[in-house]
Amino acid sequence: MFDNIYELILQARQTLSGNINNTPIFTASNLGENVYIKMEHLQRTGSFKYRGAYNKINNLTDEEKKKGVIASSAGNHAQGVAKSAALQGIKSTICIPAIAPIAKIEATKRYGAEVVLVDGVYDDSYKKARELAKEHDYTFIHPFDDEYVIAGQGTIGLEILEQLPNVQRIVVPIGGGGLISGIAIAVKTLRPDVEIIGVEPEGAKCMYESVHASHIVELPTAKSLADGIAVKRPGDLTFSIIKELVDDIVVVSDGEIAQSILNLLEKNKLVSEGAGASSIAALDKLSDDKVTCCVLSGGNINVNVIAKIIQKGLYESGRLCEITTQLQDIPGELANFLGYLTELGANVLTINQFAEHEKNELGTMVVRMVLETKNSEHVNEIYSMLKDKGYQHYRNI
Amino acid sequence: MFDNIYELILQARQTLSGNINNTPIFTASNLGENVYIKMEHLQRTGSFKYRGAYNKINNLTDEEKKKGVIASSAGNHAQGVAKSAALQGIKSTICIPAIAPIAKIEATKRYGAEVVLVDGVYDDSYKKARELAKEHDYTFIHPFDDEYVIAGQGTIGLEILEQLPNVQRIVVPIGGGGLISGIAIAVKTLRPDVEIIGVEPEGAKCMYESVHASHIVELPTAKSLADGIAVKRPGDLTFSIIKELVDDIVVVSDGEIAQSILNLLEKNKLVSEGAGASSIAALDKLSDDKVTCCVLSGGNINVNVIAKIIQKGLYESGRLCEITTQLQDIPGELANFLGYLTELGANVLTINQFAEHEKNELGTMVVRMVLETKNSEHVNEIYSMLKDKGYQHYRNI
Repeated sequence: MFDNIYELILQARQTLSGNINNTPIFTASNLGENVYIKMEHLQRTGSFKYRGAYNKINNLTDEEKKKGVIASSAGNHAQGVAKSAALQGIKSTICIPAIAPIAKIEATKRYGAEVVLVDGVYDDSYKKARELAKEHDYTFIHPFDDEYVIAGQGTIGLEILEQLPNVQRIVVPIGGGGLISGIAIAVKTLRPDVEIIGVEPEGAKCMYESVHASHIVELPTAKSLADGIAVKRPGDLTFSIIKELVDDIVVVSDGEIAQSILNLLEKNKLVSEGAGASSIAALDKLSDDKVTCCVLSGGNINVNVIAKIIQKGLYESGRLCEITTQLQDIPGELANFLGYLTELGANVLTINQFAEHEKNELGTMVVRMVLETKNSEHVNEIYSMLKDKGYQHYRNI
Repeated sequence: MFDNIYELILQARQTLSGNINNTPIFTASNLGENVYIKMEHLQRTGSFKYRGAYNKINNLTDEEKKKGVIASSAGNHAQGVAKSAALQGIKSTICIPAIAPIAKIEATKRYGAEVVLVDGVYDDSYKKARELAKEHDYTFIHPFDDEYVIAGQGTIGLEILEQLPNVQRIVVPIGGGGLISGIAIAVKTLRPDVEIIGVEPEGAKCMYESVHASHIVELPTAKSLADGIAVKRPGDLTFSIIKELVDDIVVVSDGEIAQSILNLLEKNKLVSEGAGASSIAALDKLSDDKVTCCVLSGGNINVNVIAKIIQKGLYESGRLCEITTQLQDIPGELANFLGYLTELGANVLTINQFAEHEKNELGTMVVRMVLETKNSEHVNEIYSMLKDKGYQHYRNI
């Protein structure tokens, strides 16, 4: 049914050979006995987007190549287009929302693109890119709804079948749907028995809604920790492929995605962005009787986001805890209190004592601390100590 | 010269086949055109130690296997022995310093070992393990100074030569020296032209000192962010191998190691512990004219350490900044000040206003803020604004 795109995938394989990283598939036995990860976050520019962009640009006419290409994106597509154009000696222009993180803007420039900052949201950047394309005769590189882009991403499907011949299920994040469309066409052509499962974040499940409604549904908003796949409207082409070839779409929450980012970091030693981790987050909603390959589609996450996810995880697992209590306002009281904490092996990270606090009574002061603790049991020991020694313990103030 | 150990490496290869992860070698072009990483942090238990421990235990007599094994370690060796013993159906006991991070103790238990917590430093745990070995007839598994352990680690050398046949240089972290000894014997036997470079942290360069003195030097202390290779005294066997076969030993600072951990995380999407990152930190001290493979020996780093390294990196790259200034103590002053910061696009993370502060004058208050900023240029813009608007800017108070 999509034979022409399958042919394009086989051609893309030739085009990309030697120009992309051959990303490894690796066992992830902590996630399940039969779970493997396709480490596409180790692709050039840190995500699969490089494949589709390279393939699309390579297939332009000489005339088109001479004029240059344009795209709108603040993320992986921008970097994929910028670098693959530069390596093929072609001028690229990327329209980026002015509010995008400076790190992403700088990365896109570094990869060789001319960057146009556009006020407003993504849709405004898209419009501007279309205008500039018309004005300068640039070729607009669509992030997903394009046969050559889809064909580039589809080469991942061929690689998975070769690297893991006994695969029975492939789990793929869905944003606009280009990645899963390419993989589904490659895999269902060669191995129709292999299940293809899509994953979307709760805050941007446009493909899920569209497939269930049997027509394209545009969401009013799209917001998720998995910003790379926070898309409001599926592509026309990708929708038609996905409704035909994808076996099921699973929806995951931002909390589940954050937990997967932390697990991948701590247990698998892999850095993934939200979109990349969503395919691993989906495992909990799938049976464990199939040899499963999760596509870790990208690793472009800001380190400050990693730091925040780690911090949240540390609180949740009892390795950080916050206590707010009341001490007598006399010399030695704080030292006494710290003595009890030391006995229990808790390490003070932050301490604030409030001379003014509405909970203060005559002769008392409120103290708030953040402690480094061992685990939830240890946190409970500290709570018990507070109680035993007669200290107040205010929560949520 | 070490032909017998080379034979043991070939045997270890057979023993380990199917029982270890075949870790990938991957390009790291951001680190240099000809730089590759042997991703041994993806080994079972998160480090290369699993290979040596598995091989040693597998080569015990049936009698020895029945009695069980013992080791002393708070880190990767503990986990390697615990898991490889458990998978071979053998009882293991690990002596761990009582002050070790609870996460490491728990991990060792989870892998199947009986854990004995010992008061004092590592040397006390070592002594206790030797005592218990005598008392119960356990076999003591040395972390590095053992032919079978060295042979297990040496299989990494065989793999590198196969995975990267054009390799010209291999860079390997040195703790006790087991890893580099095995790799050096394997590689120098088959490809004497390949350079073997060792790396030690400044705070624990016992092998560097020993090789330069031509006899074993014991350091009074060993302290480094790379705790996995903070060793005071080389092994006798490993020293004799290294002085013969290793071409050079490079010393790196904790700051350089931290920067490498952050780079690997941010650019290569890889999680490494300090020891693992030290081989990458060494690149700056080596010529760039050779095809170089760095052994990323382990990824067992506490996530709170990652969070701290990220934070330090954010300050250094101008993505966090701290300002302390003085405001007039009248309504609206703080709001005005925040207005200026908003205009410049800085995001306030922490704010403390001090009613008591020795810098306070009559009618002024000291305010300290931590801001999320874009880069060093952006930080300088904020400093200029402070100056232009007549605000004080205290540094280091």
